[in-house]
Amino acid sequence: MTGHPAPLSETQTADAGLRARAQRVVPGGMWGHLNAARLPEGYPQFFASAEGCRVRDVDGREYIDFMCSWGPILLGHRHPEVEAAAMAQAARGDCLNGPGEVMVELAEDFVALVPHADWAMFQKNGSDATTSCVTIARAHTGRRKVLVARGSYHGALPWCSPSVVGITSEDRAHLLHFEYNDVESLRAAVDQAGQDVAAVLVTAFRHDMGRDLELPTREFAQAARAACVRAGAALIIDEVRAGLRLDVRGSWEALGVRPDLSAWSKAIANGHALAAVTGNDQFREAASRVFVTGSFWCGAVAMAAARATLRIARETDVPGHIRAMGLRLREGLALLANRNGVAIRQSGPPQMPLMLFDADPEARKGRVFCSTALRHGAFFHPQHNMFLSAAHRSADIDEALEAASHGFRAVRELGG
Amino acid sequence: MTGHPAPLSETQTADAGLRARAQRVVPGGMWGHLNAARLPEGYPQFFASAEGCRVRDVDGREYIDFMCSWGPILLGHRHPEVEAAAMAQAARGDCLNGPGEVMVELAEDFVALVPHADWAMFQKNGSDATTSCVTIARAHTGRRKVLVARGSYHGALPWCSPSVVGITSEDRAHLLHFEYNDVESLRAAVDQAGQDVAAVLVTAFRHDMGRDLELPTREFAQAARAACVRAGAALIIDEVRAGLRLDVRGSWEALGVRPDLSAWSKAIANGHALAAVTGNDQFREAASRVFVTGSFWCGAVAMAAARATLRIARETDVPGHIRAMGLRLREGLALLANRNGVAIRQSGPPQMPLMLFDADPEARKGRVFCSTALRHGAFFHPQHNMFLSAAHRSADIDEALEAASHGFRAVRELGG
Repeated sequence: MTGHPAPLSETQTADAGLRARAQRVVPGGMWGHLNAARLPEGYPQFFASAEGCRVRDVDGREYIDFMCSWGPILLGHRHPEVEAAAMAQAARGDCLNGPGEVMVELAEDFVALVPHADWAMFQKNGSDATTSCVTIARAHTGRRKVLVARGSYHGALPWCSPSVVGITSEDRAHLLHFEYNDVESLRAAVDQAGQDVAAVLVTAFRHDMGRDLELPTREFAQAARAACVRAGAALIIDEVRAGLRLDVRGSWEALGVRPDLSAWSKAIANGHALAAVTGNDQFREAASRVFVTGSFWCGAVAMAAARATLRIARETDVPGHIRAMGLRLREGLALLANRNGVAIRQSGPPQMPLMLFDADPEARKGRVFCSTALRHGAFFHPQHNMFLSAAHRSADIDEALEAASHGFRAVRELGG
Repeated sequence: MTGHPAPLSETQTADAGLRARAQRVVPGGMWGHLNAARLPEGYPQFFASAEGCRVRDVDGREYIDFMCSWGPILLGHRHPEVEAAAMAQAARGDCLNGPGEVMVELAEDFVALVPHADWAMFQKNGSDATTSCVTIARAHTGRRKVLVARGSYHGALPWCSPSVVGITSEDRAHLLHFEYNDVESLRAAVDQAGQDVAAVLVTAFRHDMGRDLELPTREFAQAARAACVRAGAALIIDEVRAGLRLDVRGSWEALGVRPDLSAWSKAIANGHALAAVTGNDQFREAASRVFVTGSFWCGAVAMAAARATLRIARETDVPGHIRAMGLRLREGLALLANRNGVAIRQSGPPQMPLMLFDADPEARKGRVFCSTALRHGAFFHPQHNMFLSAAHRSADIDEALEAASHGFRAVRELGG
């Protein structure tokens, strides 16, 4: 990695200037998961452009991007075919008095691609999709309780937000909790819900912030499916974060488990704002009765982008490619850690990896590692799962590993 | 109006073909407010393109558009300056690892334009904005009750949906109701909430479906403001539907009443998916503590479109122009109704007009009027407020009135 300018002093940078302006007109300078205050020292808040697997901040510093906009970028930033499809649609129209033909085509694409899906509906946020799934499950069953894994993220609306600030207890009155991958705890929650269980809502894998990622066990997935069949409840997979990266057919397909409803978003339109619910025929009638809608949900441009994204993801085996790139990254990181005598743990699917340091309760090592690697041109995250894209090639991974080697040396120098 | 082909038989049309395909892959063929099953006979479900104030369906039939995509289109479809701004941003990047400079600029634009606003935050759906306002109000006050006008629409999430299908009573546990424009009922609701009142949430004007629209009275607006001051609660104006059409500074500015928080969406980016919350300094700290976020909320393309939209709305007095066009439409409709001996009522701000027929409890006259006018090239709505755009010119209004004259004749022939 060459050509990275020395870090500018905080007060000289365009980023610092924008942060100061933002402090005046945006509460706290930034909100939500993109607030850089949550990131290690030196991370930029503001970005100027991106191309492929490279993102550039407002000070012109370029990074190999392992966050992919926190998931939406599956094929690489500004993918030519996706953008061409989007622009062709934009030349005709986007937000009209009703959907375009592309909505039907996209629903047909989902039904053809996803084995559990007999139908699809579209929204804008991942939270829209998870909320729609829960509403459909309640409409179908006439019941109220929704079973969720403790610590799983399903969006930031009052009923599912990880924060309790401004939230009332009634917003979560009908949530019951189990432990991810713990069949006994799931059964206990089903028992607790009794005759009132509407749904089991579960993320495609366990990707809670700051702890090792966990793939679902076959036993757990099958138990969840069987429990829903017995209870007449909906099995809902929250594919918002993982969708298309593990398996384009649905993340649990290889486990032999199909949900009744799935919530999709993030990657499905390669950065264009779109979410989707897919469901089976059992839930079709309920889905036609609920009233869920939004001003921009039929925007045709994002749907055209999604059609291109789904096609490319399927035709070029994107999950296979990003898995290979993730494994290359994982092996390289393991080697570097070992060389530097630093103990790390890597977890999760290689497509969405997480690296944590042993004996690092406050993520001090993780933050030093990331800050150092960032200065050398790799944009990692110390606690949140990362994301690979189809634009990452072996040479990019190797370049990122060179940046990571500086990070490991910095951690080694910390001692401990 | 010339050149409109005779209506195709239902089974011949591209629209009918798409409806049949949609029936297979979309629950009920379509969901939400864009479901054409709610519209009069002959209305298309699927649209192909749009330009200015003209929208074209998938069978190539062109209409003068009085729905403007149910609000989002303020300046006309595919406005050149807005689209140029969007495309220039798209060429650099849209959904990145954080916001772009454009987010700060857009927040500065809102603060400069909207007198009550000391800050702004951005989302994707109108429901996101109303929900964020409620969450911020609860965080600031530490209280739970939200007072809303009976029948007002604030979005389609469980806490505010007009439907109860799949919704639990706990979702609305802390809503209390008053009658729009009824000061006594508002006071009674405030009393009922007692020490637990977090907010009064009120639409910019009363635009409930199927009944005469009502502008807020000065007395009501001032009473709402005073009640919130007394109670230490937030006055929230839901500008999602009306925002930028009545007054770019905020819909109640001319009444001398400023809210604490406003929810914006629909028109602010001329069809690009965006929503916003603006607030004053009293609520800034609470706004920085709530966790509200979404994968695409910082998409820079929609923000670039919004900057262009706000600038044009302000510089060219869009509210003034669309008010003049709305008055021309209103006067023309009144004249035509009178000539045909048909009794109608027109209500609401001319920019967002509604025409209802007297003695028309099931909207039979309204539906016949609309179906007939549609065949002659004007896209009206029988029960929902309509929307004017800056692209509507006098000649368009006059052409639409010619279509309307056929509608009135059809109603006259109904008798009654």
